[in-house]
Amino acid sequence: MPNSRGASTASKHVIEVRSSRRTQLINVTARVQELVTASGVGNGVCHLYVPHTTAGVLINEGYDPDVATDVEAAFDRIVPSGLKFKHAEGNSDSNLKLALTATSQTIFIENGRLALGRWQVIFFAEFDGPRHRELHVKIVPDPA
Amino acid sequence: MPNSRGASTASKHVIEVRSSRRTQLINVTARVQELVTASGVGNGVCHLYVPHTTAGVLINEGYDPDVATDVEAAFDRIVPSGLKFKHAEGNSDSNLKLALTATSQTIFIENGRLALGRWQVIFFAEFDGPRHRELHVKIVPDPA
Amino acid sequence: MPNSRGASTASKHVIEVRSSRRTQLINVTARVQELVTASGVGNGVCHLYVPHTTAGVLINEGYDPDVATDVEAAFDRIVPSGLKFKHAEGNSDSNLKLALTATSQTIFIENGRLALGRWQVIFFAEFDGPRHRELHVKIVPDPA
Repeated sequence: MPNSRGASTASKHVIEVRSSRRTQLINVTARVQELVTASGVGNGVCHLYVPHTTAGVLINEGYDPDVATDVEAAFDRIVPSGLKFKHAEGNSDSNLKLALTATSQTIFIENGRLALGRWQVIFFAEFDGPRHRELHVKIVPDPA
Repeated sequence: MPNSRGASTASKHVIEVRSSRRTQLINVTARVQELVTASGVGNGVCHLYVPHTTAGVLINEGYDPDVATDVEAAFDRIVPSGLKFKHAEGNSDSNLKLALTATSQTIFIENGRLALGRWQVIFFAEFDGPRHRELHVKIVPDPA
Repeated sequence: MPNSRGASTASKHVIEVRSSRRTQLINVTARVQELVTASGVGNGVCHLYVPHTTAGVLINEGYDPDVATDVEAAFDRIVPSGLKFKHAEGNSDSNLKLALTATSQTIFIENGRLALGRWQVIFFAEFDGPRHRELHVKIVPDPA
């Protein structure tokens, strides 16, 4: 990608994600870490950004896969299917689920690793799948 | 604004927003892009920050205006009006709606443009209008 | 902390937090400001990150303590206790409350102060206390 001002480490990277269910949390931690490692950045921040309106990015527990299943089910409970929406495409509940979660996250990088907590993983949060999606990643080293 | 350390591009900018309803999503994308363009930054990040406790900032679908209307209505459904609040001012439901959405967002800048997805717009999210509000913007170029 | 690339101002700082209730908003503003002051940074950004999966970080009203109490109670209403979860530890409601709030925040620094709005405070948001917790803080000056 052309980058007239920034160092190559700060260029935007794109991770392709393929979801298989309507509501699905997909663990993308290893793929983000690969980009951090390849950047050679020792200390800095990793910005994540989802360029979609019916999907987001969450950091939550990944050790027990039941947690992701529970969170997926709970989103479908909290946003009642009985809500009447004007938007004709039938995915306004997905827009709302995104509004309740997050489009962007900022994670610290320490000694070349994402500084996640012990039980944390990065989830791409699909709310209107199955689809092909993108997660955008920008890695910015601490100022010298 | 005095800025003893940072480049002028990183100074804080203020966008004035005027809401006309109690719950209202207001598209501010063009106004944020104007600041990005004026900064001359080619690649970097744009941080958005809302200095209020009953309003936030969201990135969601802006192509069909019904989506904003749907999301506004859904917030009023999810936070039940029947909840009993202790705070005497009568806007604790607004504080809660903010807690469920976001006070800050970070968007990438590429080649002088906000790197939004095809259907994405930036919404100032009013939860206790009508009021005069502010959206704070900081534009940080990628490190050289 | 060893920091091979970044200036010392951008090193990660850790604030220890001790919660005393299961759901609790704890005002940590003064402790974050202490770190900003100690860093000597005049203008920049302060990134906050919670390395836990059942706690987050919020910016909301701190002037009237009833607001925090109202928000705590409302979270327990919005995530219904009757939801059946598969995760055996019994804290999936806490994972979900985090998914609805935030793991990270970015606040501007102006003239050595956190640029919070008049009524805003930073809350560490405990959703599975009482526990010992950490809030991670990274202070990045604006580029020169």
